[in-house]
This record gives sequence, C-alpha cells and structure tokens, in this order.
Amino acid sequence: MVDIATRVHNHNWKIDPIVRSLIDTDFYKLLMCQSIFRNKPETTVAFSLINRSRSVRLGDLIDEGELREQLDHVRSLRLSRGESTWLRGNTFYGKRQMFRPDFMEWFEGLRLPPYHLEKVDGQYELTFEGKWPEVMLWEIPALAVLMELRSRAVLKGMGKFELQVLYARAMARLWEKVERLRGIEGLKIADFGTRRRHSFLWQDWAVQALQEGLGDAFTGTSNCRIAMKRDIEAIGTNAHELPMVYAALADSDAELAQAPYKVLADWHEEHDGNLRIILPDTYGTEGFLQRAPDWLSTWTGIRIDSGDPAQGAETAIRWWKERGEDPTRKLVIFSDGLDVDKIAELHAQFAGRVKVSFGWGTMLTNDFRGLAGDRLAPFSLVCKAVSANGRPTVKLSDNPNKAMGPADEVARYKRVFGVADQVAQDVLV
Amino acid sequence: MVDIATRVHNHNWKIDPIVRSLIDTDFYKLLMCQSIFRNKPETTVAFSLINRSRSVRLGDLIDEGELREQLDHVRSLRLSRGESTWLRGNTFYGKRQMFRPDFMEWFEGLRLPPYHLEKVDGQYELTFEGKWPEVMLWEIPALAVLMELRSRAVLKGMGKFELQVLYARAMARLWEKVERLRGIEGLKIADFGTRRRHSFLWQDWAVQALQEGLGDAFTGTSNCRIAMKRDIEAIGTNAHELPMVYAALADSDAELAQAPYKVLADWHEEHDGNLRIILPDTYGTEGFLQRAPDWLSTWTGIRIDSGDPAQGAETAIRWWKERGEDPTRKLVIFSDGLDVDKIAELHAQFAGRVKVSFGWGTMLTNDFRGLAGDRLAPFSLVCKAVSANGRPTVKLSDNPNKAMGPADEVARYKRVFGVADQVAQDVLV
Repeated sequence: MVDIATRVHNHNWKIDPIVRSLIDTDFYKLLMCQSIFRNKPETTVAFSLINRSRSVRLGDLIDEGELREQLDHVRSLRLSRGESTWLRGNTFYGKRQMFRPDFMEWFEGLRLPPYHLEKVDGQYELTFEGKWPEVMLWEIPALAVLMELRSRAVLKGMGKFELQVLYARAMARLWEKVERLRGIEGLKIADFGTRRRHSFLWQDWAVQALQEGLGDAFTGTSNCRIAMKRDIEAIGTNAHELPMVYAALADSDAELAQAPYKVLADWHEEHDGNLRIILPDTYGTEGFLQRAPDWLSTWTGIRIDSGDPAQGAETAIRWWKERGEDPTRKLVIFSDGLDVDKIAELHAQFAGRVKVSFGWGTMLTNDFRGLAGDRLAPFSLVCKAVSANGRPTVKLSDNPNKAMGPADEVARYKRVFGVADQVAQDVLV
Repeated sequence: MVDIATRVHNHNWKIDPIVRSLIDTDFYKLLMCQSIFRNKPETTVAFSLINRSRSVRLGDLIDEGELREQLDHVRSLRLSRGESTWLRGNTFYGKRQMFRPDFMEWFEGLRLPPYHLEKVDGQYELTFEGKWPEVMLWEIPALAVLMELRSRAVLKGMGKFELQVLYARAMARLWEKVERLRGIEGLKIADFGTRRRHSFLWQDWAVQALQEGLGDAFTGTSNCRIAMKRDIEAIGTNAHELPMVYAALADSDAELAQAPYKVLADWHEEHDGNLRIILPDTYGTEGFLQRAPDWLSTWTGIRIDSGDPAQGAETAIRWWKERGEDPTRKLVIFSDGLDVDKIAELHAQFAGRVKVSFGWGTMLTNDFRGLAGDRLAPFSLVCKAVSANGRPTVKLSDNPNKAMGPADEVARYKRVFGVADQVAQDVLV
C-alpha cells in the first residue's frame, strides 16, 4: 500500500534539512558553551570555515542557493521542549543538572546568529561573528551542512541501485571494522564523528552498528541528538577553542603564557571526575606539561589530539610519574585520525599502563574512500575561532600542518610557549 | 508517518507466501509444458525432491507445518489475468503467440496436483505424481519453497541489524561480481538462478543488479514472474526431463537409443531459431553427438550443463566441423556451476570461435557463502522426474556424481548409449 500522506508530505518539503536540531551537535560544545556563558559571555569572536583539502572544490561542487537554504534552516532552529527536558533532566557523566537553569533558559531562547558567505576561487568563505557563546554553536552545524551537501552533490548523479550498493559496501566495511574491534579485550570507544560525518543518517547508523556490535565496549556518542534518540551516553569534555580564545585575549606575553592554565582553572571549578581531561597540544604538549601547575596532574586524564599519539601518551605517562601520580589510574583518550589498525596498535601498547579510551571520528562516520571513485572520500574541513575581541587566534598543535594564525603571531606564540621545530604529519582527516 | 493500514494488513497474513504466482517459475518449464501438453499429455510421471547435500538436514531445519502451509499455498495459486495476458500477448524470442490458445486455456484452469510429504532421517521426502504437464510444474516452486524456508530458518535467529549487514555484504559481493563481468567485452549472460535462489526478493534484487550493472550484456532472466515485473526477456529452452521421460517410455533398447532424438524432433517441429538448443549430456555428450541425425547439426546451438565445460564446448565445435557447419555461427550456452572466474575463463577461451552465452544460476542468486558461518551456503537440491508410466527414469550426465536411476537401469543405459567410465566432478551447487 502506498502511504499517500507521507508522499504528499515529502513532496511539500521545501528542503530536506541536514541539521534538524540545535542539539545535533557535539556534547562538548554545550559544556564549553555553558563555561563561556558563565566566564566570557561578552567576548566577541569570529569563527571561519577552513578547508584544508584545497583539491575538494566545495564552491564548484555545492550550489550556493542550497547552502544558503540549509544555513538559513539552521538559523530557524530552536531547542525543542523534549530536547530541553533531556538536557535538564538527564544524568551526564554521573551528574544530574549538568546544565544550570540560567544557561538552559538562555539556550531555550537562542537562535544562531547570522552568517557571512562568499565564494572565492572555488571555495566557500563562511564566517560567523558575534558573542562567543552564540557563534561557537555554529561550528558543528556548519561542518555538518557542508559535509553532507558535498555527499549529496556526489550522490545526485547516481542511480537508485548504485546508491543501494554504495551503502551496502559502506555498511559491510564498517561492520568488518566492528568485528575487528570486537576482538580487542577491554576496549573502550566512543563516536566522535559528528563534524566529519557523511550524513546524519549515516552517523546514526554507525552508532547503532557500534551499539549492537561492541556492546559495553561502546561508551557513547559525542552527538547529543543521537545520544537522546538512541538512549546512550553523550560524550565529550573540551576543545582547542577555549585556550585559543583565552590566549588571544591575553594582554601581555606573561598573560599569554598563563592563558591555557586559566582555561583549565575555570574548568576545574565547574567539573570533576571524567570531565577533567587535559587537552595539552594547543601550544605544544611538552612545554604545556612541564610548566603546568601541580593541581593539573591530579586531573583524571588527557586527550591526545595531534602529533604522534604513542609519543604523546608516553610524554603524559612520564609527566604523571614526575609529579608523583600513578599512570595506571589515569585516562588517556586518543582522538586524532584513528582507524582500526591504529586503535588496535595503541590499545596493545598502552592497555594496563594507563586507562585507554578512543574517540573515533572520521573513519567511523565517513569512510567512503574508494566507494564512488574518491569523490566521497572524507576531507579535512574545520571551523575554527579565528579572532577574539578583534585579535587573531593562534594554534600551534603538535603537528605544524595543523597550525593556524598570522605568521608574526605564530612566531610570538612559539617563543612564549618555547615550541621548537616540530615533525610534520599528514593531516588526512 | 506510520502507515497503519499496511501494518495491520501485514499482521493479518496467515503466512508470508514464498511462491506467489504460477509463473514464478523458469520459462523453459512453460515451453516444455506446452510441448508435453501437445505430445505426451496422458503420460503419468512422478517427480521427487533429491537433496544431494545430505549434511544440510532440511527435516531438522524446516518446520513441517510451515512447509505444508507453503506447499498448500502453491496449490491455491491460479494464473492471474495479468499473467495470462503477458503470456498470450508477449513476444518471446522474437515470436508472437509462443503459447498456443489451447495450451493457455488449459493453463488458465490449472491448479497444481497434490503432493506427498514425509520426513525420513532428517530429510524431507517430497513427491508429486500425476499427469506429466501438471506434475512437472511443481519442480521450481517446490525447490523455491525449500530453499527459502531454509534461508528463513537460519535468518530467524538474527537481529535486525545483523540482517541488514548480512544483506549489505551479499549486495556488495554481488556488485563486485557485476563489476568484474562488466570488464568482459561482448559478454552475454542471463539469470538462471530461480531454482537455487536464496529468496524471491533476493533473486529480484540480483536481476536488477545485472540489469543496471551490465546493460545489454544482460540478456534476461529464466524467471517469468520477474521478467514480467521488470519488463525484460524471459530466457530458456528445454531440460533433461524431456529425454529422461521419453527414454523411460521406450519399449526396447532400439527405441531407447532413439528417444533423445525423438525429443528434439518434436521440439524441431515446434520451435526455430534461438529455441533450437541441443542439451546433449543426458546420456553422454560424445555418443549423443556422434549418433545424432544430420538435421541436429543445423540447430542454433548447444547447452553445456555437466562435465568439464571447456571440453564439452570443444567436442561440440569438433562435431559441427565434422558435419560441415561453421562453429562461429553457433551458440554455446554454459550453464553448469558458473561463477565469475569460470565465466571469464570460458569467455576468453571461446569468444570468437563460437557465439558464447552464459546461464548463471546459484552463484548469482544464492552466494551467501560464509555470511552466516556456512549456514546460508547454497546446497545441491533438485526435483527430478523419477518415473514415467511406472518405469524408472535414468540420467547419466557427463558427471557420474550427477547420475541417477536404479543401478541395473543405469547399466543398461550405459550399454545402449555406449557410455564408458567418466571423470567424476564435485557437484558444488
């Protein structure tokens, strides 16, 4: 039987929205948003889209009208009553009322601020400017919209059958990964793939694959909407934007040197337990840990998001030992460019020496390599804070290919943070 | 939106029928049925199910009640008006009115005759007895029912997600085959997989895969229902049951020796062009061709269905040359145990020397090897004429593992047809 009502309803869609909810975003964005809302509500920032994969000419692939429609749709979104109830009533990381009433009230009234879009040399220049707590919530929807419009552009030319086989292959590939991961004793892994997903539906499918295939080894998803829909844990803590903006706001080199610790001091006041995860690489992991105050070594763990991951973890272990901490009680979260081989290797190397956990991103939610030629292969798109109160931001990272900021400022930051030459690593995804 | 009507309708199904149409059968069954209806309408035959894969214990796997429900459902089927119109109005092999009005009238009134079912030692003994034109139409539905009930029995224990991945893998596997076949210049290939299909829906999917993936290289399907549904060619000519029953009816050794030629003489009167395809192996290809009357060498082609296929084709080529025929104008149809490697190999060996065509069966419609352990792997189930007017039938084939009949009769046939010892080949599917 044809469901005429559904078909007619579908015909009436003006667009097929990519982002249908304000909580179709990473959990850590909300945690950071609340922290910013409390500590730096009046800071003005600009976020910009950066396509590190210049060969993927988004401006040629994606119709500007469609892009505007999708972005306008995101601006029309408001937190729904059910979503608000879920955020207010849920237990996150074992804690009730993670989100405070004043923040929730603000969030319930929020609509995302305007965007600025231009097409330049086959790429989109997409920027967002305004109050930090509002602008920062654009990051994930903007990435999701662009990633999925790119997927749709490629899929548009394919037959119904070709599409079915494409997804069959992607499913079979992902399930093979699940089966390999199943063999790793004591694995803990979460979905961190929202920002690079092939599409919302595909991420949702991938999460279900991990849920059914990995059981307790699957610890949750960074995507709040999917966590809510599938009744699983929302996962995440904090990201580079905090130290980047705090650093940009510093009025002197001395203040700059302290900025990354100020971020974590603010975080320390708000959160405990598994939310106290150090992200040390914004201005070089080695120096950051050497100069860190002692209270930081009591934190639960560390997230390794650039550089050679094994080296990063060894650095952390050495540092904990120097500070008299027991590494076996510490958590190391790997989250940079992971796929099954790397996960298996890192797990074998560190399980038992520390508590190991993985945040699996692009290769979970967007491994379409070779499935339509390479036209659906994931690429390196980010959306970053580029300035704060009119001053440029800087990121050094443990990989010079992930560095950003004006050259003179990068030089200044390198001097202040004592970062020497680094080993470049390909940024694949 | 939930389509309540569809869900309620689905709840009300007494069973989920496997065979839903009398033309969910191979085209050659209908061609042969018409020939029998004309030439041997009063012959009484028995058909029996034979499971050559004894390790697949169908009696343990399949519930007898469910099997009876499915077989009873087949007995309730009648040719629908649309199906009758398609058979009467369609062009088959370039010919209008392939099915004569008297045959169609009979077919429109037909219901399949009773079956006899017993469970013995973990296997089902399923037999059909009665008038040849009626009983012979049981072959394909009986096989389809048993094959699919076996699939369902295995699938019953699987989760929704596991099922999705299973089919995703099977699709990806089939599509890889399609992509390999696409690389073979001048390929002609048809679906011959009805009798061994994993399920009706899967065969229908596989046909669409070939249709979309191979374009003109895909010449059609043996399944009439799918040919009608997908608006493609119905393919097939004749099978072993004709010489087997004709041979069983022979009253002397001299008549027996002539029986296979009598079959083709009757066929010669009814059909021309691409329907004149010799199936030479029932009692040994070599002897059959040596003793064949000259008019047979003028036929369009030959189907190689047992023994070493390359050797069979070489034998045919030699024979045509001896009879003064030009092999490059002859058609060789390979139809035994094919998969892509074998297809590519045979095509490379014979393209240009003869017209080559492939009837691809089990490995097209039932390649689930290794996808649920080996519990869904195809197996060798046949449904054969075992007696005619009370006399046992005999098949020698070009492979002793495919031979059937009582030992004394097999010995007599070997003597009459001058068949010496043969090389045994595994019957995989």
